[in-house]
Amino acid sequence: MNYIKEQKEFFKGIGKIHYEGTESDNPFAFRWYNPDCIVRGKSMAEHFKFACAYWHSFNANGSDPFGGSTHIFSWDQKSDVIERAKDKMDAAFEFMSKLQIPYYCFHDVDLVDYTDNIVDNEKRLQIITSYAQQKQKETGIKLLWGTANLFSHKRYMNGAATNPDFHVLAHGAAQVKAALDATITLNGQNYVFWGGREGYTSLLNTNMKREQEHLAKFLHLSKDYARKNGFNGTFFIEPKPCEPTKHQYDYDAATVIGFLRQYGLADDFKLNLEVNHATLAGHTFQHELQVAADAGLLGSIDANRGDEQNGWDTDQFPYNINELTESMLIILNAGGLQGGGVNFDAKIRRNSTDTEDLFFAHIGGMDLFARALITADKILEESSYLHFRRERYKSFDTGKGAEFEKGNLSLEDLYHFATENGEPEVRSGKQEFLENLINRYI
Amino acid sequence: MNYIKEQKEFFKGIGKIHYEGTESDNPFAFRWYNPDCIVRGKSMAEHFKFACAYWHSFNANGSDPFGGSTHIFSWDQKSDVIERAKDKMDAAFEFMSKLQIPYYCFHDVDLVDYTDNIVDNEKRLQIITSYAQQKQKETGIKLLWGTANLFSHKRYMNGAATNPDFHVLAHGAAQVKAALDATITLNGQNYVFWGGREGYTSLLNTNMKREQEHLAKFLHLSKDYARKNGFNGTFFIEPKPCEPTKHQYDYDAATVIGFLRQYGLADDFKLNLEVNHATLAGHTFQHELQVAADAGLLGSIDANRGDEQNGWDTDQFPYNINELTESMLIILNAGGLQGGGVNFDAKIRRNSTDTEDLFFAHIGGMDLFARALITADKILEESSYLHFRRERYKSFDTGKGAEFEKGNLSLEDLYHFATENGEPEVRSGKQEFLENLINRYI
Amino acid sequence: MNYIKEQKEFFKGIGKIHYEGTESDNPFAFRWYNPDCIVRGKSMAEHFKFACAYWHSFNANGSDPFGGSTHIFSWDQKSDVIERAKDKMDAAFEFMSKLQIPYYCFHDVDLVDYTDNIVDNEKRLQIITSYAQQKQKETGIKLLWGTANLFSHKRYMNGAATNPDFHVLAHGAAQVKAALDATITLNGQNYVFWGGREGYTSLLNTNMKREQEHLAKFLHLSKDYARKNGFNGTFFIEPKPCEPTKHQYDYDAATVIGFLRQYGLADDFKLNLEVNHATLAGHTFQHELQVAADAGLLGSIDANRGDEQNGWDTDQFPYNINELTESMLIILNAGGLQGGGVNFDAKIRRNSTDTEDLFFAHIGGMDLFARALITADKILEESSYLHFRRERYKSFDTGKGAEFEKGNLSLEDLYHFATENGEPEVRSGKQEFLENLINRYI
Amino acid sequence: MNYIKEQKEFFKGIGKIHYEGTESDNPFAFRWYNPDCIVRGKSMAEHFKFACAYWHSFNANGSDPFGGSTHIFSWDQKSDVIERAKDKMDAAFEFMSKLQIPYYCFHDVDLVDYTDNIVDNEKRLQIITSYAQQKQKETGIKLLWGTANLFSHKRYMNGAATNPDFHVLAHGAAQVKAALDATITLNGQNYVFWGGREGYTSLLNTNMKREQEHLAKFLHLSKDYARKNGFNGTFFIEPKPCEPTKHQYDYDAATVIGFLRQYGLADDFKLNLEVNHATLAGHTFQHELQVAADAGLLGSIDANRGDEQNGWDTDQFPYNINELTESMLIILNAGGLQGGGVNFDAKIRRNSTDTEDLFFAHIGGMDLFARALITADKILEESSYLHFRRERYKSFDTGKGAEFEKGNLSLEDLYHFATENGEPEVRSGKQEFLENLINRYI
Repeated sequence: MNYIKEQKEFFKGIGKIHYEGTESDNPFAFRWYNPDCIVRGKSMAEHFKFACAYWHSFNANGSDPFGGSTHIFSWDQKSDVIERAKDKMDAAFEFMSKLQIPYYCFHDVDLVDYTDNIVDNEKRLQIITSYAQQKQKETGIKLLWGTANLFSHKRYMNGAATNPDFHVLAHGAAQVKAALDATITLNGQNYVFWGGREGYTSLLNTNMKREQEHLAKFLHLSKDYARKNGFNGTFFIEPKPCEPTKHQYDYDAATVIGFLRQYGLADDFKLNLEVNHATLAGHTFQHELQVAADAGLLGSIDANRGDEQNGWDTDQFPYNINELTESMLIILNAGGLQGGGVNFDAKIRRNSTDTEDLFFAHIGGMDLFARALITADKILEESSYLHFRRERYKSFDTGKGAEFEKGNLSLEDLYHFATENGEPEVRSGKQEFLENLINRYI
Repeated sequence: MNYIKEQKEFFKGIGKIHYEGTESDNPFAFRWYNPDCIVRGKSMAEHFKFACAYWHSFNANGSDPFGGSTHIFSWDQKSDVIERAKDKMDAAFEFMSKLQIPYYCFHDVDLVDYTDNIVDNEKRLQIITSYAQQKQKETGIKLLWGTANLFSHKRYMNGAATNPDFHVLAHGAAQVKAALDATITLNGQNYVFWGGREGYTSLLNTNMKREQEHLAKFLHLSKDYARKNGFNGTFFIEPKPCEPTKHQYDYDAATVIGFLRQYGLADDFKLNLEVNHATLAGHTFQHELQVAADAGLLGSIDANRGDEQNGWDTDQFPYNINELTESMLIILNAGGLQGGGVNFDAKIRRNSTDTEDLFFAHIGGMDLFARALITADKILEESSYLHFRRERYKSFDTGKGAEFEKGNLSLEDLYHFATENGEPEVRSGKQEFLENLINRYI
Repeated sequence: MNYIKEQKEFFKGIGKIHYEGTESDNPFAFRWYNPDCIVRGKSMAEHFKFACAYWHSFNANGSDPFGGSTHIFSWDQKSDVIERAKDKMDAAFEFMSKLQIPYYCFHDVDLVDYTDNIVDNEKRLQIITSYAQQKQKETGIKLLWGTANLFSHKRYMNGAATNPDFHVLAHGAAQVKAALDATITLNGQNYVFWGGREGYTSLLNTNMKREQEHLAKFLHLSKDYARKNGFNGTFFIEPKPCEPTKHQYDYDAATVIGFLRQYGLADDFKLNLEVNHATLAGHTFQHELQVAADAGLLGSIDANRGDEQNGWDTDQFPYNINELTESMLIILNAGGLQGGGVNFDAKIRRNSTDTEDLFFAHIGGMDLFARALITADKILEESSYLHFRRERYKSFDTGKGAEFEKGNLSLEDLYHFATENGEPEVRSGKQEFLENLINRYI
Repeated sequence: MNYIKEQKEFFKGIGKIHYEGTESDNPFAFRWYNPDCIVRGKSMAEHFKFACAYWHSFNANGSDPFGGSTHIFSWDQKSDVIERAKDKMDAAFEFMSKLQIPYYCFHDVDLVDYTDNIVDNEKRLQIITSYAQQKQKETGIKLLWGTANLFSHKRYMNGAATNPDFHVLAHGAAQVKAALDATITLNGQNYVFWGGREGYTSLLNTNMKREQEHLAKFLHLSKDYARKNGFNGTFFIEPKPCEPTKHQYDYDAATVIGFLRQYGLADDFKLNLEVNHATLAGHTFQHELQVAADAGLLGSIDANRGDEQNGWDTDQFPYNINELTESMLIILNAGGLQGGGVNFDAKIRRNSTDTEDLFFAHIGGMDLFARALITADKILEESSYLHFRRERYKSFDTGKGAEFEKGNLSLEDLYHFATENGEPEVRSGKQEFLENLINRYI
């Protein structure tokens, strides 16, 4: 069977996708659609809250800093702003329904174009929110999270919550208020803060401390407002080290966790981790997941990938099997994501201009996650992986090691233990063995 | 006047260096030695606690992962370990005296070679510590900080305080105890922890959370021991993201600060920031300084530079005038370093094999710091730099902005302020102006 | 004297800039405007062909991938495309005249907006070219180089000369033809090729060899056309490793030189080197300059700087004194640039929204180049720098070393020389000495 | 079946490895050992000339810049230098025999320790070469390539063939002569040059052009000597951008190819490409392979991997399935490697201290290559991958496109084609589709 031919025929009509058969080159065989794919007694749909990112899939037109749009959207033609927004929403829900993507995520300005007038914007958002309520009801698709875009408008060029001008900060607050209202109306399960301009382009003109204090206060006020208005979900902060600014305050998982704890926000806020942002911060995605999990703050993930050779946010769809399998090991071990899901914060390439490309991209991404889950589960259940890790630390489970963990030993006690017991045994870290193990299960 | 000729003559005898004249190509004219260089009523010596790094200057022999030693030390010839250690110390104090470097820093194993026997090592360290006491007294040179090397011995290959084996952790503790004793004996002003192997080479075999908890406990025990034994100085943590490990827990300033606060260590521990480590972490040195200063934890610095094109710790001597001037702006604004000084954690290149090269390197480094201080002071005192920065945030000094800072406004209040006041004014960040300003003062 | 106050008054009316006085904080004292700044018997204006980049200064509106325009141009208001283009050109020549920038550079689409119709575009370009002829005559400002933008239009999303579709390649050729005509009409001294989309985003879909052969042929045809039509200037290739593509064929100086030689283009083409592109390629700018100079192909430079921490083309104005001084050492040693000049391919920051910011940026850039030239000249003329470098290689000037260079020795001869002469002397590379020397002259 | 238990038992005695069964967690099932693994009618052993790197496996003791050795070798105990070298060689051939690795590679100093005396070294090398001849005969293991280490000895600190001192260059030549003799004696199939110190640490003290001319001459003399003495194999240059130097002249594939062509060396020299070196140069390994293949110079590969987050040569064993599958696509398409093989230039981690770890590492590496070959072959044979790529360029196969390729069109002809044919069709690059395709076959 010829893969490309099949795919083309399959997508010609682009109907709802369903599972058929098992062959490796069968486009109907993707795991996400396979009802027999059961892991730990749960179906793929129970494991993953996949979400479609409104901005990349329905707004991003292929433009980049060196060229204009290449993706021409049929839903972006009408002159009336609300009609145009509804066309886009129709397309979005049709796309998600066909692919059976159960969730979506948005920024306020993704749903409908904004002007400079706060009150007008609020009205527009309310109209399209009502429309979205209806679409959600019709399709069963749910809102994973909403957010406000506080980085695109020129007024935010020096930051929003961290702007040196209080007047701009207030505008950011007004926009967040409306986005919170919309999220609550749509039963959004979470609300995200991504501080695209919360940072600096030059430290020379920046009072970093004052700006960060403003940010903390801004988050508190937003949270208080949402709670007061009935929002029970989780707030997420999405770390990213840079781009568009030179340095963003929400640099990486460890930095954000430190910030949340310093300012008393860790009870309400968790982390939304993105693969590409980890890359930009000089970390593996696995590292970021582990840091957040260890802090009890692993909330949600933005699934995509960057480019290891280039230093910007390419937001490509997931591809690397090893990386994703290792990531699922950590997520499974941590007991899953807290409140969030797997949002494909990814865009097809500028030159991926066929309608089917957006379908391929999401199918490939969901299949890879399903594959990684199945593989990671086997590693945890069938192999000696977990046993090996536990054994490595067993000297702390009993005796003096356990005493140390309990805080019952002093530095002198340790000194005496060391002098009495001589040179420790050499113990291999067995990295190559573990890597072989992972690859044997992939 | 010919620069190289002068330098060569000057160093032929290598006597004590003193200031002569003012011409730009006069090797006797370096600012560090000029008694007329007074900034804010203080001499250069009052501003800077320059320190010589024992390991780089007296132990590092030019070897790298691809080749053996190139620096042949006359002090490293005797077969008796104590005699050899004393020869090295004689050389070190002679060097520092001639250059008038007022401080030094060491790891335990820099001072004298260690064996596998804890008790023997302790004795050796005590003997050489006594000798150092005498040298300090003779020369007036002081100990800026001591530390223990918990990364070179093979027993630490999986970490010291974060080793999966309690037995190894205890060895680390024994070594720290002796290094603390030595530091206290020598009136060391501070004590440093640099966790060269505290991290992981593979996350696959690592329980990151348990390891970090061990690290925190280890630091508490060390601190308790030192305080009990009369140490009043500051403890420093030195951030570094990687090398030798893939990931080190003390990644960067923000990560370490979060860790110190989480585990209740921030009252006793501050940061020792290194330029090259900032580079490896993807930060400017200025950024790291500002982060530490904002947290009230800017303790000390390791002066050197990395290579922006290469990803390892080259530890070259300072060279970049712009970088150092901007750094001094931050340090001066922060009120200086808290307890620490400027340690030249820098080594001459593998192919810098002339005796005079070590002199050149330190002179160049100290002169650059002096120059940066003088320039930064002028910028702060004479230019509109500080005024500009203050003005940028003035909307928070009075009115609603000040109310916001005090916590008297809600999200709705901000919303109303924004709707009532319309679109904010556009305010330039003036980055190019500020950069011109810096360069005009250099 | 207060720097910012002076600057503000000075620029209030923004008249023509002229030199006044010498104080360090005097905005009238910039070296570029000082008629007494004479190096090697030549004025600054004789040394530097500074050029203004039309695209950054008059088209770039502050937008980035995360936000819209922030720079509002008064010259970009009229609805008639030609009138709008003339307004822009008036502004450009007024700006350059006031700053006394003697040259400019452009892409075809910078001068006037293009449609999808080749013939219409050609006509538009001819009209605005006539207008530019007149402006050049009035002001004495000259065209350093022209080029065609073959990367912004969506038809070029898969490349122009390297597009898999011949049809697109032909469009690129049509556009180059018109741009060459315009450049010739305006007495452009050079013509540049920057292959923004000549490369790949995925190697999976790319026949790299065939694409590169097409590129070589395309350059030959362009050159032949230009020569036939009377163009005597130099063609430049501008290396850049990536952005907007994942990999661009004109990766760095060495890669482009290899390409030019392989395809017989090295007699007509030279290199236009950009600082930020060197950074992205993992090189110092100095390295790229030296590589091009050694090949006799150092044509022109794009002056700017990148950000060492971020991986994209920030195109900031020059700032680093050490980097530029070292660069001028190489340019002076190479006998200057061949045909080209110093084009400020730099843009003010997105948040640099005051009119004066564009002035500050260019003044700072030109002053820094003048300073670097003066410093580098002193190092070459007054210090022992050149002598030191020559001496280092003197063993190849006479005797067996010279025989080796002449090709008169075999491997066996070298073997015998080595066995007969024993272990070589150790010779320091003296890097720290040389770095001190540079910093003493800055 | 428990993976780790099986592995441990399997390796307890460490006998010769042979294939047994097919289960995914069966350590006896590795593809390299499976006689039924046939691709294109050839066994794994016919496809891959796997080689063991003497230096990493039998000399590297786990030391790094921050710590001493951790791997204690039983073969490195005897005091007699020749006996010690023979013990090591016995171990090496035993290891390779058990794993059925058919080739090995060495530097001169890997085989036997060198002194400062050229003639003594030559004698030592001859003795151990004779011993190696005998071991090769006994085991059937062959020499893939030999080389000389011109970077570890302190005399090479400023380079070997590019040293400013002719005397040092002559020493390098003497060492190469002996290494060539040994390689010829052992029927080495190829000879490699890796210029670890051929580059600069500071451009300030470097005459890059003169040094590169010396390098070219040095290579010519070496080649002439080898050819005269009966060597018919290929010479390889191994690109690497940096480490140990700041910049190495053999930077990457494109740079080396340009150099070989410029100096008339491309008929005798090909490229030996290393994965980790590609990473350091900012390229994917696939890119480097394609560049070399397009030039007809894809000679051999050094199989390993780097760390995308760290900037040094970690030389880990292969692990990434996607990367290796894509690489095999290119190698298969290019018709295989020219003369060379797959050398595991990889080392087990510093903390991989069990004897079995070296076995695991090589088995994992060979299995991954076998898997990648099988997968890539299927993609090429069964999927539409190749057809898709060909179709993408079909406009150049006939008509005007073909005329263009033949050189029959001028720029004006292209202009006319473009104006007559209007705007080109939009064609998707289909990157996500192709990535899905690769992942479906993995």
